[in-house]
Amino acid sequence: MSRHSSPVGLHRVLEPEGVLPQAARRLDPSPEIAVDEVRIKVERLNLDAASFRQLFTKHGGDGDAVRAEVLEIIRTRGKMQNPVTGSGGMLVGTVEEVGPDSPLGLRPGDHVTTLVSLTLTPLHITDGLRDWDGRSEQVPAAGHAILFGRSIAAVLPDDLPTPLAMAVMDVCGAPALTARVVAGYAERGHAPTVAVVGAAGKSGSLSAVAARRAGAKAVVGVVPVEHEAATLRRAGLADEVVLADARDPVALSEAVTGALGGRQADVTVVCVDVPGCEHGAVLCTADGGTVVFFSMATSFSAAALGAEGLAADVTMLIGNGYLPGHAGYALDLLRAEPAVRAMFEARLAAEGA
Amino acid sequence: MSRHSSPVGLHRVLEPEGVLPQAARRLDPSPEIAVDEVRIKVERLNLDAASFRQLFTKHGGDGDAVRAEVLEIIRTRGKMQNPVTGSGGMLVGTVEEVGPDSPLGLRPGDHVTTLVSLTLTPLHITDGLRDWDGRSEQVPAAGHAILFGRSIAAVLPDDLPTPLAMAVMDVCGAPALTARVVAGYAERGHAPTVAVVGAAGKSGSLSAVAARRAGAKAVVGVVPVEHEAATLRRAGLADEVVLADARDPVALSEAVTGALGGRQADVTVVCVDVPGCEHGAVLCTADGGTVVFFSMATSFSAAALGAEGLAADVTMLIGNGYLPGHAGYALDLLRAEPAVRAMFEARLAAEGA
Repeated sequence: MSRHSSPVGLHRVLEPEGVLPQAARRLDPSPEIAVDEVRIKVERLNLDAASFRQLFTKHGGDGDAVRAEVLEIIRTRGKMQNPVTGSGGMLVGTVEEVGPDSPLGLRPGDHVTTLVSLTLTPLHITDGLRDWDGRSEQVPAAGHAILFGRSIAAVLPDDLPTPLAMAVMDVCGAPALTARVVAGYAERGHAPTVAVVGAAGKSGSLSAVAARRAGAKAVVGVVPVEHEAATLRRAGLADEVVLADARDPVALSEAVTGALGGRQADVTVVCVDVPGCEHGAVLCTADGGTVVFFSMATSFSAAALGAEGLAADVTMLIGNGYLPGHAGYALDLLRAEPAVRAMFEARLAAEGA
Repeated sequence: MSRHSSPVGLHRVLEPEGVLPQAARRLDPSPEIAVDEVRIKVERLNLDAASFRQLFTKHGGDGDAVRAEVLEIIRTRGKMQNPVTGSGGMLVGTVEEVGPDSPLGLRPGDHVTTLVSLTLTPLHITDGLRDWDGRSEQVPAAGHAILFGRSIAAVLPDDLPTPLAMAVMDVCGAPALTARVVAGYAERGHAPTVAVVGAAGKSGSLSAVAARRAGAKAVVGVVPVEHEAATLRRAGLADEVVLADARDPVALSEAVTGALGGRQADVTVVCVDVPGCEHGAVLCTADGGTVVFFSMATSFSAAALGAEGLAADVTMLIGNGYLPGHAGYALDLLRAEPAVRAMFEARLAAEGA
């Protein structure tokens, strides 16, 4: 067991030297662990949706060709990182060995999922992915993966189906950060109004209930279409449900202020994965307020220049996918809120999972 | 004088309807002001550097052709927004008329500069830009411009040369937000350590002194090359000056922690305009710390995924260019810190301004 390891995995980077594992072309997936590492026996890979779509399209739906390329990527890179999309996914497996200095709190036999991307996780496959038809993001697999000292994995709960738990953990940074921001206002004696843009989605529905539980005075759920509004109203996750295209700043702002008696929201949480929502989010947020951007479609410069152009004194946060305890917090929200669970289950059923 | 106006200028948008002025193809630059507007007699445009470079290169250095294209843009769009770079610039002029409901606090005769972009400022030129040779970003001009209710303009100080004041105001959001973040930690009884990446630049040098004055325990200035380090050491703006390439996460992190006795910074301020600094900034920031990104080269997804991949519990702020009082605050810093003023003057002299 090596004593010389970096908590962020620099010792596993083969080339180019000196970069972080995510930026590396090639990682060392050797099974021997360092004193602060953990080895996982892999059971399943969940490929990132964008990555799978790119591969499936490239090979014209030929599952064998998709499987061959995924195997080749993992063999040559020591990790699953699609060279075109740059994205990876997550994995499910069982803890095999835990280094004595690992801070992750895992034990051999734990059934876990990684919450850091496959793009930085050393991975070795031993079964040629023979149980996968190459036609789905869900990849049955045998082999091993390595977690670093500073990494994130969550024990899968016994009381929830694995696909449901994984769907929740996929977005668990959003409710945790929303709760922290709302609680920050509440602790200063100012229960905030909160607008959740995209409130019927996975991260949006969890963020809406997180906001309410953290002390929001009122939660406005914004959705783009009537059938989502109906779902959200039935679920009762928001005090007000309004329809607006989040890419239309004026429409979004009018919808939110209309629901809040003419006032802007103190906290706006952007959970819709479409480009062009920055100006609307700024415009519907009060001076002294906070916008939390969780959408990966967010443009940094559009947000920065938009706020300046609108002379808006708003704090704008880049939605960090990691907060301590985020997975457990999100799973507890799901257990406590049957309506949220029902929305997740309906979505999984629709996806055929 | 029209009574129906929008504080963000929606009533000036000609096409497409319903978008904000910055996103508009064409604005209405009519000189008649609404009750909350202000009309400025234009004296000079300062084109955005990227915009001017694009035009100058496109026309092979032919100043007459550059001038003709700028005139055509302003005539057809009602504002100066380069269709390729999307950027604008600022303007200098004199207040001509102030609507009775304008909240900007300006008076006729005030010598002002706009702090919102030309990309959203209605503009009309009357002199054909005849005093401009088309070979510099500084454009002598006659005509008028309109400020909306919710806009930003600053009165140019009598005690500082206009180019110096404008160089300071161009980056004045950075020191103001840095001061607010540092003061937030200090008020909670925890004087933070602060790393300023790109501390020898305009926004970096102002942010370094802002951090110190707001209560930082120690300021580490990071620069890429030795001659900048020498300048920064002479100026005495930072407690420690270290060399590192901000695009190299490991090098940046080691440089900062080396200067802080092995600890990460509580607050990291990114002021270098090169892509790829996100992971390094996260890696050199302590858990519970804050990264403020001012660089327009920041990638939202690289920051969000980087923090998640590093399991870093850091708050990441999109550097908003606007805070109330930011221009006055930055000018006061310059007046109070002769070393910062000397650095700005040396830079202006080198640029031939």
